[in-house]
Amino acid sequence: CFSMTQCFFEYETQRIVVIRSRKVSLINRLIQLAILSYVIGWVFVWKKGYQEFDSIISSVTTKVKGIALTNASHQGLRVWDVADYVIPPQEETSFFVMTNLIITPNQTQGSTKCIHLRDNSTICTSDSNCTAGFTDVHSNGVQTGKCVNFSGDVRTCEVRAWCPLENDLNLPRPALLKDAENFTVLIKNSIRFPKFNFNKRNILPQVKTSYLKQCIFNRVTDPNCPIFRLGDIVREAQEDFQKTAVEGGVMGIQINWDCDLDQSQNKCVPIYSFRRLDNKDPENNVAPGYNFRFAKYYKGPGEEESRTLIKAYGIRFDVMVFGKAGRFNIIPTMINIGSGLALLGVATVLCDCIVLTFMKKKTFYRLKKYKYVDDYERVNSTTYK
Amino acid sequence: CFSMTQCFFEYETQRIVVIRSRKVSLINRLIQLAILSYVIGWVFVWKKGYQEFDSIISSVTTKVKGIALTNASHQGLRVWDVADYVIPPQEETSFFVMTNLIITPNQTQGSTKCIHLRDNSTICTSDSNCTAGFTDVHSNGVQTGKCVNFSGDVRTCEVRAWCPLENDLNLPRPALLKDAENFTVLIKNSIRFPKFNFNKRNILPQVKTSYLKQCIFNRVTDPNCPIFRLGDIVREAQEDFQKTAVEGGVMGIQINWDCDLDQSQNKCVPIYSFRRLDNKDPENNVAPGYNFRFAKYYKGPGEEESRTLIKAYGIRFDVMVFGKAGRFNIIPTMINIGSGLALLGVATVLCDCIVLTFMKKKTFYRLKKYKYVDDYERVNSTTYK
Amino acid sequence: CFSMTQCFFEYETQRIVVIRSRKVSLINRLIQLAILSYVIGWVFVWKKGYQEFDSIISSVTTKVKGIALTNASHQGLRVWDVADYVIPPQEETSFFVMTNLIITPNQTQGSTKCIHLRDNSTICTSDSNCTAGFTDVHSNGVQTGKCVNFSGDVRTCEVRAWCPLENDLNLPRPALLKDAENFTVLIKNSIRFPKFNFNKRNILPQVKTSYLKQCIFNRVTDPNCPIFRLGDIVREAQEDFQKTAVEGGVMGIQINWDCDLDQSQNKCVPIYSFRRLDNKDPENNVAPGYNFRFAKYYKGPGEEESRTLIKAYGIRFDVMVFGKAGRFNIIPTMINIGSGLALLGVATVLCDCIVLTFMKKKTFYRLKKYKYVDDYERVNSTTYK
Repeated sequence: CFSMTQCFFEYETQRIVVIRSRKVSLINRLIQLAILSYVIGWVFVWKKGYQEFDSIISSVTTKVKGIALTNASHQGLRVWDVADYVIPPQEETSFFVMTNLIITPNQTQGSTKCIHLRDNSTICTSDSNCTAGFTDVHSNGVQTGKCVNFSGDVRTCEVRAWCPLENDLNLPRPALLKDAENFTVLIKNSIRFPKFNFNKRNILPQVKTSYLKQCIFNRVTDPNCPIFRLGDIVREAQEDFQKTAVEGGVMGIQINWDCDLDQSQNKCVPIYSFRRLDNKDPENNVAPGYNFRFAKYYKGPGEEESRTLIKAYGIRFDVMVFGKAGRFNIIPTMINIGSGLALLGVATVLCDCIVLTFMKKKTFYRLKKYKYVDDYERVNSTTYK
Repeated sequence: CFSMTQCFFEYETQRIVVIRSRKVSLINRLIQLAILSYVIGWVFVWKKGYQEFDSIISSVTTKVKGIALTNASHQGLRVWDVADYVIPPQEETSFFVMTNLIITPNQTQGSTKCIHLRDNSTICTSDSNCTAGFTDVHSNGVQTGKCVNFSGDVRTCEVRAWCPLENDLNLPRPALLKDAENFTVLIKNSIRFPKFNFNKRNILPQVKTSYLKQCIFNRVTDPNCPIFRLGDIVREAQEDFQKTAVEGGVMGIQINWDCDLDQSQNKCVPIYSFRRLDNKDPENNVAPGYNFRFAKYYKGPGEEESRTLIKAYGIRFDVMVFGKAGRFNIIPTMINIGSGLALLGVATVLCDCIVLTFMKKKTFYRLKKYKYVDDYERVNSTTYK
Repeated sequence: CFSMTQCFFEYETQRIVVIRSRKVSLINRLIQLAILSYVIGWVFVWKKGYQEFDSIISSVTTKVKGIALTNASHQGLRVWDVADYVIPPQEETSFFVMTNLIITPNQTQGSTKCIHLRDNSTICTSDSNCTAGFTDVHSNGVQTGKCVNFSGDVRTCEVRAWCPLENDLNLPRPALLKDAENFTVLIKNSIRFPKFNFNKRNILPQVKTSYLKQCIFNRVTDPNCPIFRLGDIVREAQEDFQKTAVEGGVMGIQINWDCDLDQSQNKCVPIYSFRRLDNKDPENNVAPGYNFRFAKYYKGPGEEESRTLIKAYGIRFDVMVFGKAGRFNIIPTMINIGSGLALLGVATVLCDCIVLTFMKKKTFYRLKKYKYVDDYERVNSTTYK
């Protein structure tokens, strides 16, 4: 075309050779079929290539219930309820249940100094072994520089600290709050897919209040109940609750929302799974289990401060919500169709390869397909051989 | 071509039939236009198909301010400040403001046992109705096995627990800390898009310190102020603060960063929105609202431990930061251009369909486009009909 | 083709003009090379376009160790341990270390009223300047409506509050717990890529327990040690620990997992980096640093409640885990190959442009490529010029 207008009114279409050969066309159709079934079957049906996806926004609240009775020698019978064993009382997406503890009551500071017996590094023979003001990450206090009698012939460096020092060598076995296995937790999870403006809760619409008041989650019989027995969670993660309770651990409560919003919303339900997150393996590990220290502070009649130090061992449950939602969208569909079409073009390329290289009549077909134009001589070389 | 070198110096281009027909070319141009406007308009302009996207990393700090005055019968006038009503005092991306509470002071354990009156399940006629050691998730203690007088003729099972037991049947209405409606919260949000090494804060550069000291967020007049009145948050979420305050609830403070980094950074600003996250609907629900229990522990002069149990109702505010940033990147651009080109090829396919099937001169055009090669007879079949 | 069966056994392939011109073919090969190297080099090698990606799910536990000794005038020598300075004792993905504090002991309520001296807004000359019941977000209590002597001639409005009021004007400098620089924190991070069912921990398999017991992270010498000195974290973020400790701040501990699961799992290791998240810049800022208030509650012998209010300044460390994993997947590979093929088609389009517009023999080539079909006259116009 020589001008824009002329060009606009021209329609260009490729010239095609149609080869009427059963062999060739069969190869071609087979390759086309393979590509088509890949595009349709895998990309569109299996991987939902026609959908746009969105990731999840989630909010979680938890509520633990249960009573434990302990009978430790130094405390006598004692009842523990939620306010005692859930520390801190509320967190955002996790909760901690204390299952074992070491109590060091009546710690005070001030003029009191105390002796330190944790390991051999604190044993001394004279004051010169102890450095005033020295502290390291493994000690409980600051050395005063004095070497004092510990028991018999053993002498240790004196420290300034909350005295008496904690002795955490004898961890109660079995765990003090072993009854925690029967505690239950109600997990409320509200999710949102912002791109699709879609909200849902893990308490499904068809679940009745009366059922919620007495159900316990069971993968087979009660898969929609949002109340979990702690022992069941640990057991489903292939762990032993009583063993875990002694030194503590971290459990993941995974809630997976995999929603196809092109289908009925009733099919968009959470799938619960449970997994241990920390490494219980004693090899290549440090500080196994899960514990932390906290204190309750008291004031005596003379205004002197004392505290009860508690080293709390227990299970931290992290509620991890993940998932995605897909809904039909024209863009990924078109991208995938475009790629599919480009791949269909590959069928012709492959067939041409076969036809023009391996078939007996390849020279004949080549003659039909190609027109050779030689730059050096201005002759029509259609008959070039 | 018969050798690599020969092949390298050959240029292959498709043979084209140019059909000079206004009708055909108009159909072709229309289809091309539709595909082009889809690719350019929708994929590139609307969905920014030329951009690479990154998701957000966010850090949030909050600071609540406000004073509430309560006048409960058993406590007299009492002032509540931040240290009293924000529990725990700091959290990562959320904060809890206590709005209502049930206090059970002077609970003790040890030799004390107490009677349980929550529901009919604890009523007994003789000791044989009570099982020593029995506890369930709804009880507050462990049964001792004795059946004792409660009042008049009613007898209930005695329990070992923190005594006296909490009575949470009479929730204060209106909420005790109803003044919480006027509390304010300063939310500082620092975000990062790691792929683009882009940082920003919700306190925008143009906002002055003097303004920040006295402003309150208002969607119309003060959209850049990061200080929110709690009552405003709840009202924007279409809820009634005083009703929510009684039983508690969970509110989402959504901060949406939708940034086009190809444009000026000044246009990358946070959009705040507020939503109630828990289900206030009494149907198909359990434990509506939001509450948890915690205790303050005291030691009396004789070293006996007592506690004040507090069932705290309140509003948990979850700060949910989401968003994405896009910046020009050659890969998605090329993927989309590639798909667009492949789709343009569809125009020719569609036109060929129309031209070769529905037009009057279809046989004429077909003759021009196709060259038929019959496998069975070695004749040039260009004139085949 | 006139029937389905006939059509099925036909093989269509485009008719090609092969131009034997060194100049033209060289241009063509160069453009093809450019596109091919883009597709292979950039999309496949650099951006790993053949991989499917998954985002991370992470769980973090932290454990701080260290002892600080302070010598404040009103408290004397005092030792601080973990239970004292980590508040709350455990959080999900962050931890707070108190580095500075203002203590207001023996606050009580009830009949006590106290005077308020924060700023000029509370200065009064007579009772008429004070409004009973008035409170605003910056005050510490509720005005009683009385104007009382403060000192000398100055009179201020009396307030009902926890008395005595906190005086936070004199922040200790240097920070009281300046020893916090030497505290260490053990960070355990367990990650999961759910799409690939791949789990890993930041304590790498080759790291020995004995090493973990005494190592400190150092980017050069100990890059695999999960124990960090707080001072090192702050220094790597280009901040001064002692300056930050006075008013507090928020530090991000970023753990980046960028894993190529097509390679050895040993190469999937966490990269630690540190960044200050809050704005320390005094301009356009409000409430710089990081602090919050909490209280310890006591009961005196006569059951009267008192509290010690602590305004805690300190550093909140947010552990931010991000990253992605990629593994070969057929779908993105095919999409990118499809797009690449479509782009290769661009080479022919560009070449045709050059050949048919700029070359000397353009008319000759055009004759070979195009067959013009005129709609208006039923003549074969192959020889049209």
